[in-house]
Formats: sequence, C-alpha cells, structure tokens
Amino acid sequence: MSIIKPQTLSGFRDFLPAEKRKRDWMIGKIVAVFERFGFEPLETPTLESASLLLGKYGTEADKLVYTFKDKGYRDVGLRYDQTVPTARVLAQYENELPKYFRRYQIQNVFRAERPQKGRFREFTQCDIDIFGSTNPLSDAEILACTYQSYVNVGFKNVILKLNDRATLLSNLEKFATESVNVFSIIQSIDKLDKVSEADVAGELKRKGLSEDQASGALATIKNAKCSSQLSKIISLTQKLGVPKAALVFTPALARGLDYYTGMIFEVSVPEYGTSSLGGGGRYDKLIEQLGGNSIPAVGIAFGFDRMIEAADLLQLFTKENLGTKVLVTVFGQSLLDVSLKLTNLLRSAGIASEFYIEPDDKLDKQLKYADRKGIPYVIIQGPDETKRNVVKLKTLATKEQEEMTIEELIQKLKGN
Amino acid sequence: MSIIKPQTLSGFRDFLPAEKRKRDWMIGKIVAVFERFGFEPLETPTLESASLLLGKYGTEADKLVYTFKDKGYRDVGLRYDQTVPTARVLAQYENELPKYFRRYQIQNVFRAERPQKGRFREFTQCDIDIFGSTNPLSDAEILACTYQSYVNVGFKNVILKLNDRATLLSNLEKFATESVNVFSIIQSIDKLDKVSEADVAGELKRKGLSEDQASGALATIKNAKCSSQLSKIISLTQKLGVPKAALVFTPALARGLDYYTGMIFEVSVPEYGTSSLGGGGRYDKLIEQLGGNSIPAVGIAFGFDRMIEAADLLQLFTKENLGTKVLVTVFGQSLLDVSLKLTNLLRSAGIASEFYIEPDDKLDKQLKYADRKGIPYVIIQGPDETKRNVVKLKTLATKEQEEMTIEELIQKLKGN
Repeated sequence: MSIIKPQTLSGFRDFLPAEKRKRDWMIGKIVAVFERFGFEPLETPTLESASLLLGKYGTEADKLVYTFKDKGYRDVGLRYDQTVPTARVLAQYENELPKYFRRYQIQNVFRAERPQKGRFREFTQCDIDIFGSTNPLSDAEILACTYQSYVNVGFKNVILKLNDRATLLSNLEKFATESVNVFSIIQSIDKLDKVSEADVAGELKRKGLSEDQASGALATIKNAKCSSQLSKIISLTQKLGVPKAALVFTPALARGLDYYTGMIFEVSVPEYGTSSLGGGGRYDKLIEQLGGNSIPAVGIAFGFDRMIEAADLLQLFTKENLGTKVLVTVFGQSLLDVSLKLTNLLRSAGIASEFYIEPDDKLDKQLKYADRKGIPYVIIQGPDETKRNVVKLKTLATKEQEEMTIEELIQKLKGN
Repeated sequence: MSIIKPQTLSGFRDFLPAEKRKRDWMIGKIVAVFERFGFEPLETPTLESASLLLGKYGTEADKLVYTFKDKGYRDVGLRYDQTVPTARVLAQYENELPKYFRRYQIQNVFRAERPQKGRFREFTQCDIDIFGSTNPLSDAEILACTYQSYVNVGFKNVILKLNDRATLLSNLEKFATESVNVFSIIQSIDKLDKVSEADVAGELKRKGLSEDQASGALATIKNAKCSSQLSKIISLTQKLGVPKAALVFTPALARGLDYYTGMIFEVSVPEYGTSSLGGGGRYDKLIEQLGGNSIPAVGIAFGFDRMIEAADLLQLFTKENLGTKVLVTVFGQSLLDVSLKLTNLLRSAGIASEFYIEPDDKLDKQLKYADRKGIPYVIIQGPDETKRNVVKLKTLATKEQEEMTIEELIQKLKGN
C-alpha cells in the first residue's frame, strides 16, 4: 500500500520527458548562440545567506523570498533572482574575473508567490549580461546576441523594441506633479502597447494629471526622437548582423523596473501577440545599489517559460528534433543477437535507439509501446529479413513500411 | 561602500566560467550517450513536501534533509536524492509513463552534512535507471550505456566491477552469528579492494567471528563463481558492444547500500586509483519500500564531482574543447566596422568569438585581456592587413603570429 501521497507542492512542476526535452532543446539552441558570442557560463548556489537576499528590491519582494533557519541556526534563503548572487560574485572574485565579464546564467529561482496560471514558485531564469563597460558596443553585443538566440530557436520576425530610458525620463519629467511622479506617468505610458491613447490619458487623469498635462505627456511620446546614444547602438547592432527592420524605436516603451539607466528593450514575435518574450537594458547603478562594487552593466532576461509556450504554439518543436528516434524490436530469443548487433550499429552512428528489453513480447505489443512513447520509427527484423540481410523500417505516423539494407537504414535515419 | 559580505555559505560552491564549462562539457558528453541509448530526461522540483522526503532512508539520513516551514506553514524540504522524487513520479503519472521507463536525471541535491574535503551541502547527482523490467537485458543496457558514457568523456580502460548481491548474501549467510549479521560481514568483505586479506580477517574477528568463520567467509569469496544470472548479463552486455576485458567479476564487491537485490557494479578507471567513479545495480524492492508502486529497477549513480576531478587529473579538459576560441581585437574607431564584419563571419561559421568592446584601448591591453581570460587565439586586423584583405592570427600560448586570408582563418579555427 502506497504511503506517498503522490503530488507536487502547489506552484511547483514536474517536467516529464516530453516537456523536459523541449526545455533542454531550447537551452541548447540559445546557449549555442551565447557561446558563439563569447559569453561564459556561471553557476551560483541555490542557498545563500538570507542577509544577501533580503532588502534588495524592497519589502514587497522580501516577502517572496523563501528564507529559513538551517540546522546550524543560520538564516538562509533560496535564490530569488540571478542578479543579486552575480553582484556578490563580482565583488567576491573581483581579481579573477575578466574586466569585461560577459556571462550567461540559467538556473531556477524561487518565489513564494500565490500560484496562478503561468506563475510558478520555482521557475527558470535565463540571463546574459556584460559587466564592466559603458561602451555602446556592449549594448549592441547584447542586442545582437539576443536577436540571434531567438532566431536560432526558430522564431521568425523577431522584433526588438527599443527605447532610451534616460530620454524618456527627461522628456516626461516636466509633466510630473507633487502627487504624480514621473515613474507613475511612465507606468501608464508603458501601456500604449496594449490599450488606446484615450485609455492611457484617462488613467493619467485619474492619477491626478490635468487634461493638458496628460495630453502633453502623450504628445511628447508621440513626437519623441531617437536619442543619439540609442541611434548609435542601433547602428552598431546592424553592423553585428541584425536586420534594420528588427530594431524598432518604440518611444512609449518603459519596462516595469525602475533601475534601468539607458537603453531598454523588449523582444516580441508578432505571431505570438503583444506579450514580450524577454527584455532588458542598461543598468549602470544597480550592482552598486545591491551592495556590490560600482560596475556598469547591460543585459537581458529571457522569458523562458513564455518562449516554451510560444515555440509550442508556433510548432517549433517537432518529433524529429526531440528524443529517441527508433525502437529496435526483437523477434523472440532466437534473433536477439541480430537485434542487439543492429542496435549497436545505429548507436555508433549516433542514432538515438531504444532496444526493446522484453524479447518474448509479441511484435504488436512492441509496436504499441513505441507508438505510446512517441518514438517515430520502428525496426523489424524477422527470420526472413535476417536471411536476406535487410530490415523493415516502419514509420508509425503513416504506418508505411519499407524494406532496406542496414546502410540505407542508417543513411535514412541520420538524414531525418 | 559594499554592504554585501561577499561569501558563499559553507559547503556551497560558486562555479566560475572555467569550472562551470567543465561541468557543462561533461554533462554534454554523457547526455549524448544517454540519448543514444534511448534514455529520457526527467526534472522534479527542488522543494517537496517534507513528508515525502523524511522516513525513507532511516533517522540518520533524516537529520541531513533540509526541512523548513514555508510561508503557508507547510512542512517542505529540499531534494535529498533523485530516487525518492522519482518514486513519487512513477506513482503520480503511472498512466502517462512508458511501461519500461528509462530515464536520466541530472539535478542538484542538498544535504546538511558537516562540510569537509570533497563533501558538499549542494552537489549534482546524475542517475540513469530503467524501471519496470526484471529482464537481464535491462541490466545489460544500463551497463553498456554506463561504459559508453565514461568512454565518451575520454576515460581509457574503463572497468566495470560486477557482482551478484543475491549470491553474495546466500554465500555468506552461513557465517553470520547472533552478534554479527550478514550485512556486517559483507561490509568488511567489501574492503578487500583496499586492504589486505589479513586485515579483513582481523576486522571480522574483532566483530565477533571465530578464526574458522572469518577464514571460511574469505575462502568462500575467493572461490565464488559468477552466478548464472550475472553470466547472462555479462554476455548480453558484450553483445551490446562492451569489451569482455571491461567486465570484471569481483566476488568481494558489496556496495555500501543494502537495498540492492541482484547485479551490483562499480566503475573504475585504473589511472585514477581504486576510488569508484560511480556505481549501481538492481533494486527491485526499493521503489515500493519508498512508498511507491511495486516496480523493479536497475540503474547507476554517476559520481559527478569525482568524474570532474579524474578528468582534470587525466587532462581530458583542453582549452580547445572549452569556451571562447578567439578574441577579435579592434584597431581603433576607424577600423571598427571591419572588425565587426569579421566577427559576424566567424560567428556565422560557428566559431565562439568575443568582440573587444573598448576600441580605444591599445592593442597590447587587448592582448593581455585575451591572455588573462584564457582565450587561445587573437585576431589582429590593422590598416595594412585591411588593405590587403588579410588578417593576423596570434596564438597566445606560443606567441606565434600568422598572416592569412579570412577563408583560411575560418578553416583553421574550425579545424582546431
């Protein structure tokens, strides 16, 4: 009798093979691009001292940090984001790290949020950042690497919406009042992507701006010009191979977080709608504010779960690029050796092959097993085929069956 | 002023790029083999209900589980191993998982141990297992996949020491007394690998066996024959491509854990000494004992940290297979576009290339940067080279400098 109540904690997820493969496949695709751009991997512990984690993003965020006392009565906590531990790393290994540190980090973070659709208590964060340079070339490298990462996953029409947060601030400052500060105005303006101008004007007025102030703020955004710094970044990014049409100056773009100091951007894929698939920007003060050294930085956080959702929707995952390709069936004990030999050959050729481990099961049962497991091909080699030194390859989706030599089989499966 | 005390908790580790790359590289090497053998990935949450984690491996193990109350006053805990969550998964998704579930799982686990050399509070476990079959073919698949995984990392002379725990138990049972049970005898016998026969006999006598019983137990081990079940497994494993010499019947091998029910094995690489680099076996009762369904199982736990240590010692990691290959230097603002274009070409060819983001820095400074960062090659393209449409490739280890066309450069860097 089972004493485990078999369930995961609310807000936590198991990833069974089909889902886990998608995640691993996507990580492989983006890491290949990170590496090509010279980014280096970093890993930090899951547990940190609670004093490191708390008091960094305000009291609301602190409530979401998983903290507890360990067996030695130390106050510890689970990783809440990747930026705070990285700020620690930058301080702790100051002399070992390169002056311009370009790192990627893909680890799970933990937030004691109320679970809801699309919001989890443990989820994967995936960041790339360049630390140590204010040169617009570092902004351009982040943008180019971001663009190529999404392209490499298979997204078409990747758009990077760009703005300069410093310009945005200075443009809107004049509309701020004692009761409505500039960040509050920006917060409303940021919604222009999703709601109408009239709605935004209404919200600004409800917040306390006059009719004139609200329309003035909107007009300012409408007429805003790309700053010379942002123009330079866009031009450098094109030189790094990103098409002009993918880099869209978006004067209303504000990003939720207040710590950005320069270029800000969001990634979108029109087929997936207006939701952003990732975003980032320059944050030259944050590392110091987090208690680290004064180090300028620019980077992006990939929206990993959303990317998985979008890739699913756009059918970027196919059986052909995921998982076990073929099941080698066994025609009873007498032909076991033949099947084992064939399995070796396939594996040596790099073809992901499962060997059916119960040779006494009927062929029909073996075929059903492959079908249920989503293995696309099955190999059948009975006495007749063995004698003639051929195999039968069955494609389960179409139920087609083809006879071929082993060399032909390997060519065919490698080609797919 | 820094308010972070920049340090990791005792027993926890940061992996800076050089170390993290080794780990990622090794995971890539072994996962490639797992996939080739038709194993599928699984991921479970870091946090589980404390009731799932506790009471599974005895009171000593329970003390090492990180448990705490979450914000909703639920008793939760950090993953202690991968077997208990997998037992939960097998019960929870009974109808979704294949009948013969071959899964791999590579995740960190947490143990509140006293930190010491080579023992950490967070470390990576890497397991492959086949659930649902008692057929010796599943034992053979595990052994063959294990062997090929170590070979793929680059270890030479991989040895799998094998024994049959059922035979071991039945052979030694007759020497057990009221005060010395068979498991205690096995524990001493297991040391024959590392200490002399006389030492083992001494230990058995100190435990309470008579002279005759101790020498009888030792003689039994010396004269033990390979069981027919184990012979069958060894023969099948050879048919799956593992050389006979790599499969060594080792009658004194016992493995530390008492839950094995059949074949047991350890992986060793003679160049690394007698320490095992991994081990496993058949455990047909454990999943049910853990509160899951009655499901037979066979598998191995890779000693991931030890494998890293051994690979380091045997110099299996080389700069050539890890990390950024080339730094593209910049000859001032005037040749910036030329260098950007070259960087694009290299990256499009799949060559991991860092672009130097401070074009006003002197060449010497750029070279030093590459050297410190361990990037093996540097590309220099000044006005003269640009005019003649060539580049200079500098190999930092030898300080050699070669002039070549861009096509030659790409060929050379891809070849390395």
